[in-house]
Amino acid sequence: MRIIDQKKLSASGEYSYVFSSYPEPVARVNPGEEIALLTEDAFAGLLTSETDVLEVVQKKRRGPNPQTGPVYIEGAKAGDTLKVHILNIEPGRDWAVSCIHKSFGGLTPNKFTRMINVPVKDKVYFYRFNKEGMLYHNDFLCFPWKPFMGTIATAPDMEAVSALTPFENGGNMDCPDVKPGNIVWLPVSVDGAYFFTGDCHAIQGEGELCGTALEISAKVTLKFEIIKGKKITWPRIESPDEYMTVGSARPMEDAARIAYAELIEWMTEFGWDRLDAYQALTQTGKLYCANMVDTNYSMVAKVSKKFAERQHYIIQ
Amino acid sequence: MRIIDQKKLSASGEYSYVFSSYPEPVARVNPGEEIALLTEDAFAGLLTSETDVLEVVQKKRRGPNPQTGPVYIEGAKAGDTLKVHILNIEPGRDWAVSCIHKSFGGLTPNKFTRMINVPVKDKVYFYRFNKEGMLYHNDFLCFPWKPFMGTIATAPDMEAVSALTPFENGGNMDCPDVKPGNIVWLPVSVDGAYFFTGDCHAIQGEGELCGTALEISAKVTLKFEIIKGKKITWPRIESPDEYMTVGSARPMEDAARIAYAELIEWMTEFGWDRLDAYQALTQTGKLYCANMVDTNYSMVAKVSKKFAERQHYIIQ
Amino acid sequence: MRIIDQKKLSASGEYSYVFSSYPEPVARVNPGEEIALLTEDAFAGLLTSETDVLEVVQKKRRGPNPQTGPVYIEGAKAGDTLKVHILNIEPGRDWAVSCIHKSFGGLTPNKFTRMINVPVKDKVYFYRFNKEGMLYHNDFLCFPWKPFMGTIATAPDMEAVSALTPFENGGNMDCPDVKPGNIVWLPVSVDGAYFFTGDCHAIQGEGELCGTALEISAKVTLKFEIIKGKKITWPRIESPDEYMTVGSARPMEDAARIAYAELIEWMTEFGWDRLDAYQALTQTGKLYCANMVDTNYSMVAKVSKKFAERQHYIIQ
Amino acid sequence: MRIIDQKKLSASGEYSYVFSSYPEPVARVNPGEEIALLTEDAFAGLLTSETDVLEVVQKKRRGPNPQTGPVYIEGAKAGDTLKVHILNIEPGRDWAVSCIHKSFGGLTPNKFTRMINVPVKDKVYFYRFNKEGMLYHNDFLCFPWKPFMGTIATAPDMEAVSALTPFENGGNMDCPDVKPGNIVWLPVSVDGAYFFTGDCHAIQGEGELCGTALEISAKVTLKFEIIKGKKITWPRIESPDEYMTVGSARPMEDAARIAYAELIEWMTEFGWDRLDAYQALTQTGKLYCANMVDTNYSMVAKVSKKFAERQHYIIQ
Repeated sequence: MRIIDQKKLSASGEYSYVFSSYPEPVARVNPGEEIALLTEDAFAGLLTSETDVLEVVQKKRRGPNPQTGPVYIEGAKAGDTLKVHILNIEPGRDWAVSCIHKSFGGLTPNKFTRMINVPVKDKVYFYRFNKEGMLYHNDFLCFPWKPFMGTIATAPDMEAVSALTPFENGGNMDCPDVKPGNIVWLPVSVDGAYFFTGDCHAIQGEGELCGTALEISAKVTLKFEIIKGKKITWPRIESPDEYMTVGSARPMEDAARIAYAELIEWMTEFGWDRLDAYQALTQTGKLYCANMVDTNYSMVAKVSKKFAERQHYIIQ
Repeated sequence: MRIIDQKKLSASGEYSYVFSSYPEPVARVNPGEEIALLTEDAFAGLLTSETDVLEVVQKKRRGPNPQTGPVYIEGAKAGDTLKVHILNIEPGRDWAVSCIHKSFGGLTPNKFTRMINVPVKDKVYFYRFNKEGMLYHNDFLCFPWKPFMGTIATAPDMEAVSALTPFENGGNMDCPDVKPGNIVWLPVSVDGAYFFTGDCHAIQGEGELCGTALEISAKVTLKFEIIKGKKITWPRIESPDEYMTVGSARPMEDAARIAYAELIEWMTEFGWDRLDAYQALTQTGKLYCANMVDTNYSMVAKVSKKFAERQHYIIQ
Repeated sequence: MRIIDQKKLSASGEYSYVFSSYPEPVARVNPGEEIALLTEDAFAGLLTSETDVLEVVQKKRRGPNPQTGPVYIEGAKAGDTLKVHILNIEPGRDWAVSCIHKSFGGLTPNKFTRMINVPVKDKVYFYRFNKEGMLYHNDFLCFPWKPFMGTIATAPDMEAVSALTPFENGGNMDCPDVKPGNIVWLPVSVDGAYFFTGDCHAIQGEGELCGTALEISAKVTLKFEIIKGKKITWPRIESPDEYMTVGSARPMEDAARIAYAELIEWMTEFGWDRLDAYQALTQTGKLYCANMVDTNYSMVAKVSKKFAERQHYIIQ
Repeated sequence: MRIIDQKKLSASGEYSYVFSSYPEPVARVNPGEEIALLTEDAFAGLLTSETDVLEVVQKKRRGPNPQTGPVYIEGAKAGDTLKVHILNIEPGRDWAVSCIHKSFGGLTPNKFTRMINVPVKDKVYFYRFNKEGMLYHNDFLCFPWKPFMGTIATAPDMEAVSALTPFENGGNMDCPDVKPGNIVWLPVSVDGAYFFTGDCHAIQGEGELCGTALEISAKVTLKFEIIKGKKITWPRIESPDEYMTVGSARPMEDAARIAYAELIEWMTEFGWDRLDAYQALTQTGKLYCANMVDTNYSMVAKVSKKFAERQHYIIQ
C-alpha cells in the first residue's frame, strides 16, 4: 500500500495549515486505491512533555492542525461528490497529549468571546498506552482507543481556509463519527478535489469541551470514490446503520439548522416529501454537538438508514 | 394510588399555563408517595382532526402546554433539591398529534428569528396506535412508543414563567431523557417546591425539529424525594448508567456551556478537581440537543456514572 | 401633581421585582393626567458606599431593579396600545452608583455564558453631582446628566417577568432613548395595562457594557395616552425626529431582526410596500445596541420620521 | 496622481475575490503617496438593469465583491500597523444598484440560517443621480451621496479569506465609517501588507439590512502610513472626533464583545486602567451594527477622542 508521507512529498517538507488548492498536490490517487496517509498531531509533534510551555510551542509551529495534503483525486471534477471510505487509523506514537489552553476552549474566553477575566493557566495532560491498550494519564483520566480524524476536507473554490475551521467542505469538524468503518461525503469544489486530513484524536467526547482531544499522530488508511455529477453542499457521513449530516456555523443553532436542513434534502433523494421529512426527523432524528470550541461550531444530525430509505414499516 | 386530576382539583377547573407559585396548589404530596398526574396535551386536547385550523385552536386555548400543578411537596424548602422519580407514563387517548406550524419550529421563521418570507402553511399530522403498538400516520411516518414528559418544573422564586420556556427550574426542556426509569433533580426555589408537569410526548427526536412531537395526554406516575439543604442551580437527570445536566439558554452554545459547567460541578461532588473534570468531559462527555425550537434551547450533557464516580479504572 | 410613592401605596410597602398583573395596582391613573412616580435605584438604595460588599447587598434585597407599579391605566384594554409621554426625570439623591460585578456584564462570564475562570473582583464606583452638575467620580470618570428609565413595561398576559428582563412588553431594555421628550409605545396585554417603571440611569452608553449604568433613584413625570384597538407586538419609541423600535432577544442578531422587522411593519402604516421598506431601511436605517448584558439583549432600529412618512423627497 | 486600475495591472486582468497574499501585487506604493484605486461594484458591474436575473448575473461572475489589490505597501512588515487615510470617493458611473436577494439578507433565510420556507423573489432596485445629486429610484426611495468602502483589508498570514467576510484584518465590514475624512488602522500580517479595497456604497444604513447597499463602482483616493512595530489585533477607525473599533464575528454579541474589548485596549494606551476603561465605556461608549448580513456580523464601538485621551474633565 502506498504511503503518503507529507514530510517527504511536499515541496517545502512542510504540512499545510490551510485547506486550499493553492499548493501543489503532494500525491495523486486513483479512486478505489487503498492508501495510507501519515498525519501529524495538532501541535505538530512539538508538545512532548507536561512541562512544555504552550506559548513556546505555538511560536515554534506555523499554525494549529498541520494537514497532510493536498491529495489530488484523479477524475474528480468540481460539482462531483467525493466519498472517503475510512478503513483504519493506527497511532503514530505510544502517547497522546491534551491540554487546557488559556484562550481556547468551550468554557474559557477566547478570540471571539472576549472577557476581561484573568486567563486560566495552561495545563498539559500526557497519556500513554498502558498494557490494556488504554490511554492512561492517571487512574481516573484513562480512556479507550476510539480514534477518528479531527479534520477531513476538500479544497474550497478560491479560499484558503484555516485548518482550525470547519466549513462546507468539511475541515476541522472534530466529529467522532469520522472514524474507521464510516464513509464521509465531501463536496468537490475544484478539479482533483484537493483532499486533506489530519488532527487525529485517540478519543474525544461530544463537543471537544476544553478544545483539545487526545491528540495523536497517526497512519490513516483510506479509499476514495467519486460520485460523478452529484453536487452536495455540506458534508455527509454514512455509518453502517445511519445517515448523518454535519453543519458548521455560529451561533450553534445555525449549525443545527444546517445539519437538519441537509438531512431533509438527503431524505428527499429517497422519495420523501420535504415537509414529511421535516415531520419525520422531529420524531426520530438525533442531533449531537461535535465541537463547541472551533471557529465554527459543528452539529451532527442523524437518522436510521432503514427509516430514511422507507424500509421502516416493513421490517420494524 | 392517588390521582391528581387538574380539572377537578384546581380552583378554576383549568390547567396552569405558567410555572409559578402564584396559584393555590392543586394537591399536597408527601415524599415517597406514589402518585399519578393526569396531563393534557400541548394543544389542550383541542386539536382533534387533521382538518382543524391551528389558528382557531390557538384562539380557543389559553396558551400552549397546559400544566398539571402546582403540586405542593410537603417538607420541601427553598434551597433544597427535589428528586422526581419517574415511574410510568400511560397514554391518555388512542392517538397522538403533531403539526408543522407557520411561525414555530427549527426551520421556520418565528417570533424571535423574524423573516420577511411568506409563512409555511400549517399542516397537522395525526397518529393512531396500530395493533403492533406503534403510532401510525402512514407506512413511513410510524413510530414506537417512547414516552416522556416535555415539561417538568418547580416554581421560580418570584416569576411566573411561560409553560413554553425551559429555564433553571426545568420547564419546557423537551428532553427525551425525562422518561420512566430516570430521576430528575430540580432546584427548590419556594417552600413546597410547587411542582408542575405536562406536555407529554409519545416519542420525540433530538431537537424537536418542527416544534411539536407526538403530543399526547397522559397519566404520569411519579414519586418525590427531597435532598435537604442541597442547592443546585440547574436541572439534573439520572439514568441507571449516566449523570446528565440540562442547560437552557440562547444562543445554543450558552445552553451547551451551562450543561457542561453544571456537569463539572456535579463531578466535583465525587472528588474531581475542576480542571481535571473539564479535561475528562472533553474526552468522554456526550452532548445532545433536546430542543432547538423553544424560547430557550436545551442542551443535555452526559457522563457515565462509573466514570464520574471514579470507579472507572478499577472495572473497565 | 399626584405623586406615586410605592413605599406608601403598595400593600406590602415593597417594590415589585417582576412585571405582572398578579399584584394589586398601587394607583389608578387616567389618560392625560400628569403624574410623578418615585423610583428606587437598581440596588434598592442599599449600595451606599464603595466599601459595601455586593454579595451582602444582594442578600438584603429581594431582587434587582425594584419597580414602581403596577399602575392601572383607566380605559386601557388588552389589545390597545399605551403611549407613555416621558416629561421629566429628576434625581432622587445627590449621587449615583455603578459597579463591576463578578458574574454580570458584557465582558464577564455570567449565569448563561459560563466559564471556568476565576471571577473578576467586584468594584463599586460612586459618583456625586459636582457644582457643574456633572456626576463626578474622579477627573476622568465624570459624566453629564442624561437621564432615562432603564425599565418601562406593561404586564404580560399570564407571566410574571423578572425585572431584569427586556421583552415584548418593554421591561429592562436599558435603552437611552426612553428619556424625557420621547414617547414610548407599549402593547397592552391585560385590562388596565399594569404599568411599571424604575431602574433610572443618570447616564448610560450604548450596550451598558459592564452591566450597571449610573444607577439612581428618581422622580419620573409621565402622561399616558391610549390608542384604542391598535395592537402592537413590541415596543416603539418616538422622538421628535425619529421612529424607533426595540427588539429584545438572544442571540443579538435576533434582537436586531425583531427591531427592523417591527420598523418595517410601522412603515407599512404610512403606505410603504413591505419589500420597499426593507430596501429603504437598508440604506437609511440606524441600528444600535441598547444592552448587551441583560437576560435578553436589546437592539434599537431607527428611521427619520419625515422619511418614513414619505415627506422625504418633497422637503430634502 | 497614480491610478491603480486592476483590469490593466493584474496578471489575469481580473479582480481578486479573496483577501490573501497568494497573488502577485498589482502595484507597489510608498507610505505618504496619494493614490487612486478604481474599484468595481459588488456585482462586478454585471447587474445593469432591473430586469436582469440575479442567478444569471451570479453565474457570470467569479464571486461577490471583486477587490482591487493586492497593493504592496513598501516598508510594511508583519507585526506593524497600516493606517489608511481615506481622502476621497468618486462615483464610477451615474447609477447605483441594490437588490433583495432570495438567500442573502438580514430578514431572509440564507446559507447558514436555513429555513424550509419558499424563498422571497429577487428584486432589483436601480438608482440614478438626479439633478440635486441624490440617488433616485422613485420619490420615496431617494438617498443622498454618503459614500464609503464596504471592504478594506490587509492579507491574513496564510488564509485566503472570501471577499464576503469581515475578519481580524478588516474585510467586508460594510461599515459606513470607512469613509473620506476617516483613518482606518489595519493589522499587517505579511510583509508588504497586501492591501485590498472595493465594494463601495453610495450610501448604506446601519446593518445593511437587505444585504446590498447602493452598490457602486468608484475611484477611491487613499494615502498609507505605517506604524512600525505596533501590533493591533482588530481594525480601528479614527474620525476627527472619535476612536472606533470594529469586531466581526457570530453571534452578534461576540462581535460586540470584540469591539468593546479592543476599545478598552486602545484606551489603556492613553493611561486608562483596564477596569476603569470598562466602567467608562459603560457610561459613554457607542455601539452600532455595521452589518447583520455577512458571513460575520460587524459591530462598531466608539468613544470620544477627548474623553479617551483624558482631556475630558479639563475642557467639558
